[in-house]
Amino acid sequence: MTLTPEQLADIEEQRALSQPTRRAVSPGMEERLYTAHPVLDHGLIRVIDYMGDDNAITQAARVSYGRGTKKVSDDRGLIRYLMRHWHSTPFEMCEVKFHVKLPVFVARQWIRHRTANVNEYSARYSILDREFYIPEPDQLAAQSTVNHQGRGAVLQGAEAARVLDMLREDAMRSYDHYEDMLTADEEAGKQGLARELARMNLPTNIYTQWYWKVDLHNLFHFLRLRADAHAQYEIRVYAETMCDIVKDWVPAAYEAFEDYRLGGVNLSGRAVEVLKRRLAGETVTAETSGMSKGEWREFEAIWG
Amino acid sequence: MTLTPEQLADIEEQRALSQPTRRAVSPGMEERLYTAHPVLDHGLIRVIDYMGDDNAITQAARVSYGRGTKKVSDDRGLIRYLMRHWHSTPFEMCEVKFHVKLPVFVARQWIRHRTANVNEYSARYSILDREFYIPEPDQLAAQSTVNHQGRGAVLQGAEAARVLDMLREDAMRSYDHYEDMLTADEEAGKQGLARELARMNLPTNIYTQWYWKVDLHNLFHFLRLRADAHAQYEIRVYAETMCDIVKDWVPAAYEAFEDYRLGGVNLSGRAVEVLKRRLAGETVTAETSGMSKGEWREFEAIWG
Amino acid sequence: MTLTPEQLADIEEQRALSQPTRRAVSPGMEERLYTAHPVLDHGLIRVIDYMGDDNAITQAARVSYGRGTKKVSDDRGLIRYLMRHWHSTPFEMCEVKFHVKLPVFVARQWIRHRTANVNEYSARYSILDREFYIPEPDQLAAQSTVNHQGRGAVLQGAEAARVLDMLREDAMRSYDHYEDMLTADEEAGKQGLARELARMNLPTNIYTQWYWKVDLHNLFHFLRLRADAHAQYEIRVYAETMCDIVKDWVPAAYEAFEDYRLGGVNLSGRAVEVLKRRLAGETVTAETSGMSKGEWREFEAIWG
Amino acid sequence: MTLTPEQLADIEEQRALSQPTRRAVSPGMEERLYTAHPVLDHGLIRVIDYMGDDNAITQAARVSYGRGTKKVSDDRGLIRYLMRHWHSTPFEMCEVKFHVKLPVFVARQWIRHRTANVNEYSARYSILDREFYIPEPDQLAAQSTVNHQGRGAVLQGAEAARVLDMLREDAMRSYDHYEDMLTADEEAGKQGLARELARMNLPTNIYTQWYWKVDLHNLFHFLRLRADAHAQYEIRVYAETMCDIVKDWVPAAYEAFEDYRLGGVNLSGRAVEVLKRRLAGETVTAETSGMSKGEWREFEAIWG
Repeated sequence: MTLTPEQLADIEEQRALSQPTRRAVSPGMEERLYTAHPVLDHGLIRVIDYMGDDNAITQAARVSYGRGTKKVSDDRGLIRYLMRHWHSTPFEMCEVKFHVKLPVFVARQWIRHRTANVNEYSARYSILDREFYIPEPDQLAAQSTVNHQGRGAVLQGAEAARVLDMLREDAMRSYDHYEDMLTADEEAGKQGLARELARMNLPTNIYTQWYWKVDLHNLFHFLRLRADAHAQYEIRVYAETMCDIVKDWVPAAYEAFEDYRLGGVNLSGRAVEVLKRRLAGETVTAETSGMSKGEWREFEAIWG
Repeated sequence: MTLTPEQLADIEEQRALSQPTRRAVSPGMEERLYTAHPVLDHGLIRVIDYMGDDNAITQAARVSYGRGTKKVSDDRGLIRYLMRHWHSTPFEMCEVKFHVKLPVFVARQWIRHRTANVNEYSARYSILDREFYIPEPDQLAAQSTVNHQGRGAVLQGAEAARVLDMLREDAMRSYDHYEDMLTADEEAGKQGLARELARMNLPTNIYTQWYWKVDLHNLFHFLRLRADAHAQYEIRVYAETMCDIVKDWVPAAYEAFEDYRLGGVNLSGRAVEVLKRRLAGETVTAETSGMSKGEWREFEAIWG
Repeated sequence: MTLTPEQLADIEEQRALSQPTRRAVSPGMEERLYTAHPVLDHGLIRVIDYMGDDNAITQAARVSYGRGTKKVSDDRGLIRYLMRHWHSTPFEMCEVKFHVKLPVFVARQWIRHRTANVNEYSARYSILDREFYIPEPDQLAAQSTVNHQGRGAVLQGAEAARVLDMLREDAMRSYDHYEDMLTADEEAGKQGLARELARMNLPTNIYTQWYWKVDLHNLFHFLRLRADAHAQYEIRVYAETMCDIVKDWVPAAYEAFEDYRLGGVNLSGRAVEVLKRRLAGETVTAETSGMSKGEWREFEAIWG
Repeated sequence: MTLTPEQLADIEEQRALSQPTRRAVSPGMEERLYTAHPVLDHGLIRVIDYMGDDNAITQAARVSYGRGTKKVSDDRGLIRYLMRHWHSTPFEMCEVKFHVKLPVFVARQWIRHRTANVNEYSARYSILDREFYIPEPDQLAAQSTVNHQGRGAVLQGAEAARVLDMLREDAMRSYDHYEDMLTADEEAGKQGLARELARMNLPTNIYTQWYWKVDLHNLFHFLRLRADAHAQYEIRVYAETMCDIVKDWVPAAYEAFEDYRLGGVNLSGRAVEVLKRRLAGETVTAETSGMSKGEWREFEAIWG
């Protein structure tokens, strides 16, 4: 991540400014505000604004006139209860706004989460920067031979070098041509292609950026799917950075999320039966489990 | 609106507390925070939290690193442009959370606006208060004879008195019975009916309350429909109170909203044609307008 | 449920009409179409329209040009995979439209599910019928002494009789007054109160009705929460009726839903640990589980 | 648009199959079903399924037991009323599902419309085809000199030829490298890069495809913005194709949409004032209008 001196100055200026407010304040989040957290080679996440804290969740659940209980332990217990029983609306009472810089192919996955607000940098209106995601060598993985949408072993030697060369050269050439197409030059009789057209030449590892605003319930949903081991690495690192941030923002809610969602397990009715048989001392095999091969493989991965 | 001493103390306590924040602060909204704005006879609206200000709208539209321009006039021009061209996402970057106390029949209209977050006081879990909406005499209107879902002249004398008596007496009796059904009395062999059942006896002019959180774009959509002269009076007064609040929160955005939406007019293709013919000096009548009777009536109401 | 002869004729007329279509057809659902399924004393659910079948789910997951595989078993396996891995979008490719008649207090819970389309009978525009929900004696339950929002033992004898009398009498009286307020009588100098006002006198056990349209993913979400044992009985019976209907519509998807959601269990990270310790032969108690009392109680209810 | 023989056979097979249904049938839409409507050089739109017709809109608005009025003219009048008064929910009662093949940069604009259901072809799971959008010469426009996000004059001669060469060559080379990176070759010691990584090398004029399902109200919203003259040409042609389809599906609703939305005009409060002054005979200039330069330019474009 390389920020220009102007961008760094903008960030510092915002961090330096402090004003009084009557609103709920999360000390952990105030510390995070505006700072650029680096992700991948040129990406970043910045918290631009937030609304609410742990107490805002229980305050809304109680529809109370004041801030409610002063005891943090009471809030924590209620928050765990709400999370356990899938009460989603109190978590919707907290909101956060991020500034994210990310490769276009990551943005395409991200945007599938519809319950959020987005303003993306417009490549119809503006010119994109020459910044492309090139994977680190240890992320240059082969196609998985067992999982149709996963990664296998890391590429080695000549194959890895060749892939990196192709990615880098194609990115640079496409950007050179992008600039060339855009350039107007009266003497040469060049008008310059419209931005909305020239951008189509750029590969999807180019970086874009957006403001993304979401409530805590829907953010948790995003994080559960995208901080998961099955998510593509390039979006997972963004999710992990946001997990760290949310932990500082609403510690009690994050703890409940970690226990019930991130670290939790969903059992089918069949899986419940199998576990009960095992607890009763029976040895259950793939054949006697009533599960398909895929289900059994996933079951065994957790329960042995 | 009557608040208990505890509720008033809760509000005062929250208003008294001020903490530093790095976030965008709206001075007009800080002034509003927590205060109970009375609506109808027992209703209220309180701002519980907010995110963003006018500048947050243009900052998101520009996807900028800093707060963007320092010139308020530049923000104002861009905000008007965004509103005129139906760019909704920048307005979604501001968020507000209200505490609202309102009659159930108003809540039923309100909740039809789906893009918002709600936590309502639970009548399964808690006991509702003895508070019912009884209209002021000047709001006791007859059924409109021209509009199937509107009001006509105000009721007079005996009819008005009789209506008010029925509303008051039925409310009190239903609440007496609600309390009676709920009451457990071991000696009398009474267990007390479940709250989730007893509540069904209460008429829809009883007050409920909720926390309601919404982004500015969707709030504007709500206000355009509910602050409109065709909206039912009992929800319109809530919308009008929110209009006053939003004006203090994001003055430039509200000004644009007022000009382009609240005070604006939608013309059909036919209406555009009729106006052009009129501007060209032609006298257009209902017959030559190509409009239906209803359309022509509405057209004439504006253009004479 | 009492339908008028006109309503019955309307239903029969629609059922009698059959036309050719090129669209996917679900035989089980065709059988259900338009028929009024009774719920509670005056309520009903009717399927008005539907889009898609089991095959539409896998067809969309594969983004295929044709109907995809002809083997039902392949579809079933893929559907189970999609359900297990929380792939929600293929299930969104099926849609259903219901006509529902339900008490207002049930409608108020129902509408909290926002990702659906609703057209409700307007009490501003029209006059409501004299139909109120009065519970069956075996549903007249006391407030639970352990669960703040649940039911306990059934009321007996005099208490039950008294409650039913109050519910019936208050419903009838409020409706009499509703009619009285509405009635215009020129000779008597009565204008008749506006409908939008008179309705506020009616208790929430009066029946309303609406058209409700939802995609299969969001319907499953609704059913998981509302067919659950913790849901209020009066909404649960609607959910159960819809479960029967969905089973006929998309048998494979419903089977997967039943196994993974309705009959499934969510384990927290702590609960996973406790189960693993048990499987390893350890005796885990509430004290050594690391769970709160509430969590332990719920854990024991399933795992003993 | 080139379809493989297998794809054409799949389409023909689906079109040939007809089954009886009790559901509402739209004859115009049955005719459209499954057929591939070509858009751009390799894109297409196919109707996969639909729910409802014009009558379904008024049936829901009336919450009726039967199909409602038999008179098409009554439906038409009510539909115009609903459209004029922004009653959106009855239009939500119709649903349509499309199969769309489109360039990635168009997909990125399209997906910003969040109230819809989408299943996209997965480039993590599958390999994309070698199909890229290359503009027709008459669409190769220069950047507009007046509109920051629009097109100006068409490029000529050498500049145009050069742009087309770059677009074609970069597309082919990036796809060659994509294939190369993906290829496993045991003898050569090549594992083949994971699909989810290799795809990042592809420019955004490559074609993707998805199933897209949306209700009529939200489709109209999409069409109003994307069939507009200010929309980028490459998405507008998709919108225009859908306009033709919708016209066949729900003729009365489309007619109302065309009159009130597509052909309609939104006037600000200021613009209403200016028009009234003009109607009263006054000559209003930019200076005396109270409008900004941009507003006045847009006002003049319509009203002269």
